[in-house]
Amino acid sequence: MKVAWAGSRHAVEVADRMACLVASDPVFRKDTRTMLSRKELFKDTLKKAAHAWKRTVELHLTEEEANLLRLYIDQPGYVDLHWVMFVPAIKGQGTEEQQKKWLTMAYKFQIIGTYAQTELGHGSNVQGLETTATFDPSTDEFIMHSPTLTSSKWWPGGLGKTSTHAVVYARLITEGKDYGIHGFIMQLRSLDDHSPLPGITIGDIGGKFGSGAYNSMDNGVMRLDHVRIPRDQMLMRLAQVTREGKYVHSDVPKQLLYGTMVYVRQTIVADASRALSRAVCIAVRYGAIRKQFGSKAGGPETQVLNYKTQQSRLFPFLASAYAFRFVGQWLKWLYTDVTQKLESKDFSTLPEAHACTAGLKSVTTSATADAIEECQKLCGGHGYLNSSGLPELFAVNLPACTYEGDNVVLLLQVARFLMKTVSQVASGKQPVGTTAYMGNIQHLMQCKSVVNTVEDWLNPAAIKEVFEARALRMAVNCAQNISKAPSQEEGFSELSPDLVEAAVAHVQLIIVTKFIEKLQEDILGHGVKEQLQKLCGIYALHLIHNERLGKLYAQVRPNAVALVDAFDYTDHYLGSALGRYDGDVYSALYKEAWKDPLNETVVPDGYQEHLRPLLKQQLKLSRL
Amino acid sequence: MKVAWAGSRHAVEVADRMACLVASDPVFRKDTRTMLSRKELFKDTLKKAAHAWKRTVELHLTEEEANLLRLYIDQPGYVDLHWVMFVPAIKGQGTEEQQKKWLTMAYKFQIIGTYAQTELGHGSNVQGLETTATFDPSTDEFIMHSPTLTSSKWWPGGLGKTSTHAVVYARLITEGKDYGIHGFIMQLRSLDDHSPLPGITIGDIGGKFGSGAYNSMDNGVMRLDHVRIPRDQMLMRLAQVTREGKYVHSDVPKQLLYGTMVYVRQTIVADASRALSRAVCIAVRYGAIRKQFGSKAGGPETQVLNYKTQQSRLFPFLASAYAFRFVGQWLKWLYTDVTQKLESKDFSTLPEAHACTAGLKSVTTSATADAIEECQKLCGGHGYLNSSGLPELFAVNLPACTYEGDNVVLLLQVARFLMKTVSQVASGKQPVGTTAYMGNIQHLMQCKSVVNTVEDWLNPAAIKEVFEARALRMAVNCAQNISKAPSQEEGFSELSPDLVEAAVAHVQLIIVTKFIEKLQEDILGHGVKEQLQKLCGIYALHLIHNERLGKLYAQVRPNAVALVDAFDYTDHYLGSALGRYDGDVYSALYKEAWKDPLNETVVPDGYQEHLRPLLKQQLKLSRL
Repeated sequence: MKVAWAGSRHAVEVADRMACLVASDPVFRKDTRTMLSRKELFKDTLKKAAHAWKRTVELHLTEEEANLLRLYIDQPGYVDLHWVMFVPAIKGQGTEEQQKKWLTMAYKFQIIGTYAQTELGHGSNVQGLETTATFDPSTDEFIMHSPTLTSSKWWPGGLGKTSTHAVVYARLITEGKDYGIHGFIMQLRSLDDHSPLPGITIGDIGGKFGSGAYNSMDNGVMRLDHVRIPRDQMLMRLAQVTREGKYVHSDVPKQLLYGTMVYVRQTIVADASRALSRAVCIAVRYGAIRKQFGSKAGGPETQVLNYKTQQSRLFPFLASAYAFRFVGQWLKWLYTDVTQKLESKDFSTLPEAHACTAGLKSVTTSATADAIEECQKLCGGHGYLNSSGLPELFAVNLPACTYEGDNVVLLLQVARFLMKTVSQVASGKQPVGTTAYMGNIQHLMQCKSVVNTVEDWLNPAAIKEVFEARALRMAVNCAQNISKAPSQEEGFSELSPDLVEAAVAHVQLIIVTKFIEKLQEDILGHGVKEQLQKLCGIYALHLIHNERLGKLYAQVRPNAVALVDAFDYTDHYLGSALGRYDGDVYSALYKEAWKDPLNETVVPDGYQEHLRPLLKQQLKLSRL
Repeated sequence: MKVAWAGSRHAVEVADRMACLVASDPVFRKDTRTMLSRKELFKDTLKKAAHAWKRTVELHLTEEEANLLRLYIDQPGYVDLHWVMFVPAIKGQGTEEQQKKWLTMAYKFQIIGTYAQTELGHGSNVQGLETTATFDPSTDEFIMHSPTLTSSKWWPGGLGKTSTHAVVYARLITEGKDYGIHGFIMQLRSLDDHSPLPGITIGDIGGKFGSGAYNSMDNGVMRLDHVRIPRDQMLMRLAQVTREGKYVHSDVPKQLLYGTMVYVRQTIVADASRALSRAVCIAVRYGAIRKQFGSKAGGPETQVLNYKTQQSRLFPFLASAYAFRFVGQWLKWLYTDVTQKLESKDFSTLPEAHACTAGLKSVTTSATADAIEECQKLCGGHGYLNSSGLPELFAVNLPACTYEGDNVVLLLQVARFLMKTVSQVASGKQPVGTTAYMGNIQHLMQCKSVVNTVEDWLNPAAIKEVFEARALRMAVNCAQNISKAPSQEEGFSELSPDLVEAAVAHVQLIIVTKFIEKLQEDILGHGVKEQLQKLCGIYALHLIHNERLGKLYAQVRPNAVALVDAFDYTDHYLGSALGRYDGDVYSALYKEAWKDPLNETVVPDGYQEHLRPLLKQQLKLSRL
């Protein structure tokens, strides 16, 4: 099962090696992370990042190994933005020369970069950004400026205290005309003493949800006061400004930008499946240790994991973890496929790939956040202790519902794409990729489900048809209702809640389909495929009705712990007293408690000033 | 509307006065709370608690005023346990003399008390507790002991560092026989120097979910090593141990304990409605300020609150806030009613009142936690900033799903009660209180809903009947399926997921009913009742299907901000840059950011050690 989860024997081997490298290195210790002050935590992040790079260089790690190393260090920091946003943005939007110049430095960490798009007053709507880049032909420079408070750059990770450079998005203005949002490479800080360059006001935006969690990251605020940069620092692959200030489009179509988005979002889907699997691993293992109530009065207490209510809440998450994992592996393939097509100047599949990744990002991150919160509850009170690992896991992953595109906004984009596809199908055009099923409209609109028993749900063809029919009917239904509205826009707005549901149904179909396709590969290991088939059935069935699932849960229960062990997480990476591999939960919790700063003294700091006077009835005299 | 929300003009007036008292006192400042280290935060809590008591005494505040003062200080601390658990437990389970002796000291804070029930290995299942209280006739003492690691007391608030006394629950053993769980008053710390008494190991259990939040509270761990206490410190209202060690029941029935639970849980329901209303207040106000995307390309951006998707997610929470508020007010009445009946030795309605409060605690806290999380998402990225107030609000309220009875465990208790009631109805017994509707079984089992249009949903009789029929049919359906099972217990276990749903339906009926009853009172203010009717319709309708609600949302939208202003929260209490009354959101966010410790220096601590060597390519030389 480990191989099925990891994708290959090679993947298992590399992952193990990197996980152990991190777990065995004291610099990467994280068990007291949530107790650190904001400044200590940030410094700890800088230390870990530098040490990780040192090891990467010393051990000549491959890119795959280096990425895994970063992953197992498991602490958000500027390096994430540098590798996942800054570098890909230059790769995607920079010219050959620009890539050569900047990436050479970025690959060696001679510069640290971030991605400065969102502003204090502007998030999802990129077109609403206010920052300006005005071309000055007299000096051949762009003047970067924040005209208003709401135009302050806000949120970029690593911007607050770390990054020396950034790709900054701003409205390009030349010859008095506004050409909309474009990317510019800006140096933010001196490479000698790290002080911000003239005209740049920069800082951290303050504490964020959770202890530890994203507080290790210096999300930043930046205001620009007429800062000048050379013309050649505009990312010019899609469009250029000439020496004279003429705005010129290149032959590269705009969809190219989708390439970067597809990349970023597929990494988010992979993160979501990993986060979900960690929460499930903790909840399942603890559920097997924890006992509550006797099966009958006086009898021994029952493992919590044996309760039907527990199974009906937890096992759908277990199934989702595998479902998201497999769709994530497919997304990796999709990205490489898209990139190859881009290089051969074929942009035909980009919109479909973009809609599909946007939808998957939305559905997987929302489901993951909800699942982690639920796992916290499923662990009882102890789930709220930082030592359970769940609070930080939740706090780190909840924001994924919002960054890189608000999940509802993304689903509405998917819905627009679906409505477009429906109308194209109506006019005889063959839909491609994940929308191909829509071509089968006649059959799907009136077919009747042949699914009656739980066993039927293990029949892939039946599952697939039900989800195809469900998704298509919801989409067609929306399209028809929109056509009744006075205007397309009004109809879309009126029906947006239904459109969101239709988009979700379409995305869930994709996930189910990829799970089924995975089951059609030959999968090694005795009984592995059978277990995966049950999980596939649970994932599909729990989405459309919760009845009659008990049977399937009962079949999964005996292997539940094995199924989370297959995630192959070290205790270091899991970081949970409840999810320990050895099950020695209670002594671990007890040990962790004494690490808390409050336990440094028996009589707490504050007793003399604030408790003693109270107890001794001397408050009236005391000056607080 | 303020009056309808608060309950009376008097309530509005007192609340305003106490809220201003807190907001205007620098000691109660909380805007930097999430940035404090654990030790600083705890000390700050001690300071606020002592100052609050000082003001209470100085100003001769009434109990009502003092409770509101504590509420607006809005920081969990030992005083909550002292007043909400310790004092009521002694009131409920102590004899006259015991109350006289201990409450006299508790009322003056000569002692600080907590409630030590849960153990490291034992939560919901009180009967599973392991701590022992063995009577020693030779000295007329109980020997309090923790025989195992898992018997360590774990979680009690204020236990870790503050409380001098506790009501400790332990297995009573006398004459070699185990008489099960009973309550004992124990002194934990010296009243002279606050050091733990001999045989008592005590500490804090460590950091908890969120920054700030419950980390202000010293939830504690305690191990007892054969600690001796006088016999008369057993709480003896229900049962006693004689000088000779005989175990004697008093004439007071066990249901009496329900009295305390009803009290505690009604306060939790009140807290939930308040927390939900705070989150909704923030999300609605910010939704009216925040703009995203143009209604049409180039047009001005639209207020987020005008988007149907936003309304369909947010307005049900707005309706729920009012629904929970009114059912909470009714619960207060129920508690006084129960207490009066107790005093007149009438215990007949206790089980029904107990089931009803257990169910309401479960449904309102779960809905509130989910709603706060959703409000965080509805505020976009900024919702994850501590300065939005939402992260702490969420972290403080999520645990309510688990403490004082896990929400699912509670719903199963409600379900058991419902099954019992169904069978009693079948045998001709008239159900009472919130289950009275079950007497109407013949009609409800086959009546057909007359609800077609949204307008029908404003007809209270129609709403009520639909919810009664829904709840009853689910309950009866469960009862029938259980009767088919080989044994009652097996059937109950098999069907537990359905039983949970049936219990929820019953509780939702109670909430809807109390909302409707509120609407039958005369409500002052122009258009107030009309708005409440719409909210009642939204609350009811969104529970059973989400279609066709758009019309109602459109009718609420114009008053949305007014409806949250009616909660009458000061900016201090709300503690949110996004939810500010004056709407000056962005400058507030900007101002808050600079308070972060990371912004104390421009070049961050750690640059010299961990960033410069990286950028200067000197890592190989550097020793980290």
